[in-house]
Amino acid sequence: MQLTRFTDIGLRVLMYLTALAPGQLATIPEIAERFEISRNHLVKVVHFMAQQGWLATSRGKGGGLALAKPPEHFRLGEVVRTLEGAMDLIDCAEPPCALRQGCRLKGVLDVALAAFFQSLDGHTLRDIVASPTGEAIIRLHRGAI
Amino acid sequence: MQLTRFTDIGLRVLMYLTALAPGQLATIPEIAERFEISRNHLVKVVHFMAQQGWLATSRGKGGGLALAKPPEHFRLGEVVRTLEGAMDLIDCAEPPCALRQGCRLKGVLDVALAAFFQSLDGHTLRDIVASPTGEAIIRLHRGAI
Repeated sequence: MQLTRFTDIGLRVLMYLTALAPGQLATIPEIAERFEISRNHLVKVVHFMAQQGWLATSRGKGGGLALAKPPEHFRLGEVVRTLEGAMDLIDCAEPPCALRQGCRLKGVLDVALAAFFQSLDGHTLRDIVASPTGEAIIRLHRGAI
Repeated sequence: MQLTRFTDIGLRVLMYLTALAPGQLATIPEIAERFEISRNHLVKVVHFMAQQGWLATSRGKGGGLALAKPPEHFRLGEVVRTLEGAMDLIDCAEPPCALRQGCRLKGVLDVALAAFFQSLDGHTLRDIVASPTGEAIIRLHRGAI
């Protein structure tokens, strides 16, 4: 069980942006380089997050990315749920499961998944870039890691 | 986020065996056919589950598989945790994350994962093959689905 690469990248970008100084912007090339992520991948994730209203983007010289709202307004459960998209822990259709009409397993897994997100929703972006992570990100902004 | 195919197959096999009549055995070819799973995959999963002491297997004519202990002794959290093996929701090493020395995200995800398993551990194999699933499996034993 693993989060998708899409979610992983999304979380890294959000954490990176959280630790920007007020008014500071980051750019796609900068983030791609710092995290050694393909620019292609990164553009897709950033575009999606901008569509969610999570990122403010500005084009042109001096343009870049920033969070569109304060980091304490990003609840982690909601962030992960949105980045993951439709999430079925098991795929009853592949291979087609003969039990799927009356199976209780899926219901039990869905309840457990709700507990997972409830736990994550107890934290915001602000929490996970608290010390010492925040300092690490700031060093990263400077290219010092 | 999805359970591995290995876990998916393991759960299907355990459910199938749970609904066997006392003394009844199932065979690999039978299970592979009923669930449309490759026999190769199935053998690996069955072998692993036998090593865990979950399955009793007997060879030769009239041989087959059964649960090695009552289904109420299989807690689902433990079953899924064991089938999944080492489970990191994010891979901090791929691509190498510059933040991994001081990151708080992993700790938050680990706590959420513990909540997921705690929820699952509230159920046993016996619960998920209760009616109507049990009846569906019995029809499946007869090849009627």
